[in-house]
Amino acid sequence: MPLPTSVKLFEMSPRDGLQNEPGAIVPTATKIALIERLAKAGITHIEAASFVSPKWVPQMGDAVEVMAGIKRQPGVVYSALTPNLKGLENALTVGVEEVAVFGAASEAFSQKNINCSIAESLVRFEPVLERAREAGVRVRGYVSCVLGCPYEGEIAPAKVAEVAQALYEMGCYEVSLGDTIGVGTPLAAKRMIETTRQQVPIEFLAAHFHDTYGMALANLYAVLEEGVSVIDAATAGLGGCPYAKGASGNVATEDVLYLLEGLGIETGIDLQTVIETGYWITNELGRKPSSKVALAKGSSR
Amino acid sequence: MPLPTSVKLFEMSPRDGLQNEPGAIVPTATKIALIERLAKAGITHIEAASFVSPKWVPQMGDAVEVMAGIKRQPGVVYSALTPNLKGLENALTVGVEEVAVFGAASEAFSQKNINCSIAESLVRFEPVLERAREAGVRVRGYVSCVLGCPYEGEIAPAKVAEVAQALYEMGCYEVSLGDTIGVGTPLAAKRMIETTRQQVPIEFLAAHFHDTYGMALANLYAVLEEGVSVIDAATAGLGGCPYAKGASGNVATEDVLYLLEGLGIETGIDLQTVIETGYWITNELGRKPSSKVALAKGSSR
Repeated sequence: MPLPTSVKLFEMSPRDGLQNEPGAIVPTATKIALIERLAKAGITHIEAASFVSPKWVPQMGDAVEVMAGIKRQPGVVYSALTPNLKGLENALTVGVEEVAVFGAASEAFSQKNINCSIAESLVRFEPVLERAREAGVRVRGYVSCVLGCPYEGEIAPAKVAEVAQALYEMGCYEVSLGDTIGVGTPLAAKRMIETTRQQVPIEFLAAHFHDTYGMALANLYAVLEEGVSVIDAATAGLGGCPYAKGASGNVATEDVLYLLEGLGIETGIDLQTVIETGYWITNELGRKPSSKVALAKGSSR
Repeated sequence: MPLPTSVKLFEMSPRDGLQNEPGAIVPTATKIALIERLAKAGITHIEAASFVSPKWVPQMGDAVEVMAGIKRQPGVVYSALTPNLKGLENALTVGVEEVAVFGAASEAFSQKNINCSIAESLVRFEPVLERAREAGVRVRGYVSCVLGCPYEGEIAPAKVAEVAQALYEMGCYEVSLGDTIGVGTPLAAKRMIETTRQQVPIEFLAAHFHDTYGMALANLYAVLEEGVSVIDAATAGLGGCPYAKGASGNVATEDVLYLLEGLGIETGIDLQTVIETGYWITNELGRKPSSKVALAKGSSR
């Protein structure tokens, strides 16, 4: 199969990135500035916030303020994670046009992460999907632990396919497949996609790979060969502490863009602007980007 | 083409790694201990030293002491870089069984790095190859800048193939193709191999990729798909400063081993022993391993 000619990059840094940053909570104004800079770089899909209980994720407690504060650009989708109906209702008050629900391919991870079985989580998503449909809001589905689970170890590709199919049939327009702990390798990633595409058309599958073991780009290359054309990434590799044991940063947007440019795959995104944005936000966080491309190319400022 | 069932890993840390480490010169005893630990992990090919003028590379000034000091294990090849006849003669005094010569696929890089044209460098290698043949010593050939040059930019695959062919026909038993500045991406790596294998049988080609732009593992996966079955790597990603602009560390042996294990490819090397060796040597150097696998798995000590 030929590589795709273009890829849709889904930017995760404002949500999956900052949510997992160690240290202090990032100011609302900084989050808004980050989102606006990312849009300026040409990124058209940005996960901007998470409407979860601030008791659980205090880093995302300002979701309403963030979503309301963004100066929206035409052609850019600002999505938000809404794990339940209450979150969705809150998101709707600030005119969100796309939301996301978050499931798992591992029973143990589902229990530990969202306190219910996979089947129960799908039941919980139903009213969210229904209300979103009424409101004319698109829903993205996430499946975590698709290449391994911290509690269960290996995950069968058939299980990933089953959960992805359920989300797709429930109405999710796209299903993002997450190697949450970054343990996957290319053939495993290929097999997982080969199995899942039997249930969900390949154009509606996204690869969401973490770089914990340095495998993310090799795995992305492998699934591009399978025809995957949507990739999740976070500028500067935000999310998780890059130098600690069990670090679990998202693959860096800069590195993904460099890979795609080298493969002749279009994204419409300006790499150097993303690099500058990564230096800016990590400077705000008191560190350097976790992107080798950013470190190699450097900031022009 | 199916992936190879086994890969020969050629360990670079004692030479290409320590040679490029910033900071103080590593004590001879530490070099010897590193080499012995690597052999204990199951690594059977180790580039142990460089017989160059200490005026040029003071870090390698103790090549004779290192080579003489190693407690050699049966089945392990301890090779040395010998850019000229004088270097080879010195290496022969300590019973080296394999040496290496170092050429480039870029005229500008050849001039800057070894002060002569590519053609002149090949002429200089001839007496080295001849003397090595007389002494019953195998010679490995390196070609640098195979996927890009800091002075010339892109390098034509045909140029790489031409230099690799010259080294092979001159008597090098294996030709290692180096992405010296780590700028390559998977399709470029594939094309370079496809062209070069027309001149040198694939089983005699090695991939020597640096991870400066984070592409090394993706590129290795791509060339494994082409049938390459020899990979150069350095434990802990030694070589070059990992966090500076223009950093140019070798791909980490730990990360390569994790990739290969995931692909079901045999190496005979124990990953955890290499991880411990990486923590030990970087601790000696006052830093942490530049291997995501090492950081994620941690040291057991």
